[in-house]
Amino acid sequence: MKAYLRIVPILIVSILFTSCIKDEKTEQIVESKAEKSNKVGSITLVIHGGAGTILKKNMTPEKEQAYRKKLDEALQTGYAILEEGGTSMSAVVAAIQVMEESPLFNSGIGAVYTHEGRNELDASVMDGNTGKAGAVAGVTTIKSPIRAALEVMNNSPHVMMAGPGAETFAEEQGLEMVDNSYFGTERRKKALEKALEKEADKTSDLLQYQDWKYGTVGAVALDKDGNLAAGTSTGGMTNKRYGRIGDSPIIGAGTFAENISCGVSATGHGEYFIRNAVAYDIAARMKYLNISVEESAKEVIQKKLVDKGGSGGVICLDRSGNIAMEFNTLGMYRGYMQNGEAHVFIYKNE
Amino acid sequence: MKAYLRIVPILIVSILFTSCIKDEKTEQIVESKAEKSNKVGSITLVIHGGAGTILKKNMTPEKEQAYRKKLDEALQTGYAILEEGGTSMSAVVAAIQVMEESPLFNSGIGAVYTHEGRNELDASVMDGNTGKAGAVAGVTTIKSPIRAALEVMNNSPHVMMAGPGAETFAEEQGLEMVDNSYFGTERRKKALEKALEKEADKTSDLLQYQDWKYGTVGAVALDKDGNLAAGTSTGGMTNKRYGRIGDSPIIGAGTFAENISCGVSATGHGEYFIRNAVAYDIAARMKYLNISVEESAKEVIQKKLVDKGGSGGVICLDRSGNIAMEFNTLGMYRGYMQNGEAHVFIYKNE
Repeated sequence: MKAYLRIVPILIVSILFTSCIKDEKTEQIVESKAEKSNKVGSITLVIHGGAGTILKKNMTPEKEQAYRKKLDEALQTGYAILEEGGTSMSAVVAAIQVMEESPLFNSGIGAVYTHEGRNELDASVMDGNTGKAGAVAGVTTIKSPIRAALEVMNNSPHVMMAGPGAETFAEEQGLEMVDNSYFGTERRKKALEKALEKEADKTSDLLQYQDWKYGTVGAVALDKDGNLAAGTSTGGMTNKRYGRIGDSPIIGAGTFAENISCGVSATGHGEYFIRNAVAYDIAARMKYLNISVEESAKEVIQKKLVDKGGSGGVICLDRSGNIAMEFNTLGMYRGYMQNGEAHVFIYKNE
Repeated sequence: MKAYLRIVPILIVSILFTSCIKDEKTEQIVESKAEKSNKVGSITLVIHGGAGTILKKNMTPEKEQAYRKKLDEALQTGYAILEEGGTSMSAVVAAIQVMEESPLFNSGIGAVYTHEGRNELDASVMDGNTGKAGAVAGVTTIKSPIRAALEVMNNSPHVMMAGPGAETFAEEQGLEMVDNSYFGTERRKKALEKALEKEADKTSDLLQYQDWKYGTVGAVALDKDGNLAAGTSTGGMTNKRYGRIGDSPIIGAGTFAENISCGVSATGHGEYFIRNAVAYDIAARMKYLNISVEESAKEVIQKKLVDKGGSGGVICLDRSGNIAMEFNTLGMYRGYMQNGEAHVFIYKNE
């Protein structure tokens, strides 16, 4: 009993002491905590091809097959780079380029049309190891916007470039330039026509056409050196106007990567993702609340965003290889590859 | 002694229980915690006119006087609105407009020149009560960029508009449009010439001319209803090119406001502020680490940013009227007004 009595004060003091350390809450403590729990996992690639009202009843078997095949191709392409010892950034860019070149997604070829009937593209990348980032917004003649974002990161002192200035830069870097019509597809042209009709018809339900606003693509990867990278590429919203910039080229909103927390790429109603700094908020909660990437993504997408009325989703990956693919819409084109196995999903309950 | 023994287990259990609650760390707990400590303070306005290598030895008494007078005018103008029961957003916009119209600051008249020799302006606002935000980037003919950001927030479904599209929108909203030469000043033209010379002379120390990159203006206000608002307006960096967008129009980087945490406006080397989501990071640390606005601003500006090599500063204000004016440069034009008294500062140790 006496021994017990001697232990009690020690116990209390040690509990209080632990809670004091917690209360100090300095950057150092928080970050070292995150780093300690971040044992480097095996090479991993996570991708998305946009979130929205994606329902099996609206799909043909052929269309579904085409999406699954293209998502698998993007995964295999990026993962092969990781397997060969390439960087997470190379894998992210390569996976995104597969989707940019496919008319199935709202990025590169197949991008949605602006109100004025052209394609204006946004993209961004972030390197979780160096904290460097690059982005382009409102570009119309750069064949691969994600590649242009990479050039901004690697070969300029800036993070973000927009419009004709960004195009001049991309051309100077030797990137392939195309006519704006290169990105055009009949399907997206029809979507614009439908949106313009709905807009003219004030009695129709504007919410109904929200669905074809989405379709951004993105990727997050972890390489053999334990470095994270993230990237996002998009055509934005059908019928967007006035040089609207969404969340995709905004570091902290649509894209974020940091080795000590996670990599994030977002898709959805961009304005909500900007106002809520969604990508960085997921990283911040991991660091400061010491929660897992799955918990953090869930809190932000299923609680915070739902409460505010924002729809969409994210893919996230931490340094240990933990994956979150969280969305509050009816579906999200998505997949991951780890330990040599690719997994592709479309609907909610898969 | 026996009574003591009975208390001990209760004590331990209660300490463990408290720490369990802490570990739950859900949005609800964090936010309600922040809200509880957020007793609404008296109306307050905080402003900045840019951070940089501002030294008394480089100032004339007349120049110093001019800055102090203009900062005081901006404070008095915004504060009068708060005193009359106006909103924090109205006060923020009015205070910033005083600085936009002064050639002393790098926003509106007196904006720095791009590489091509023109003025491209960025601005943003955020409402801490509704979470709504608006921003314009790369605009050249809108007389008051901060007013245009407000219009984007109030009268469009978008958060961010860039270039000619943003100008079309502003014109449609009935905002005053001007020729680009309206913003030009001899002083800034000379700064560009100097920067171009330094650039041509590869042997010169590029760091030396970093100083005149800065000079952004911003304001954060708290109104009688306990609502926070923040705004930032800038000409960006001297000699910027390729449609560069800095942190000022990026919600979460240069501007952020949220009643449950704080309002923030930043100034400095924008690329670092974007990569580190500076404005939102200060808010996130307050919410998730439960620290004060002063501590949070200090951690981010003096530790995190300094470690990464980013120079600049922020003004922050929480709902209780607590103010932080934190910068890691040699000076920052800044001031606040509370309880009817205006205070203006320029140098580090004032």
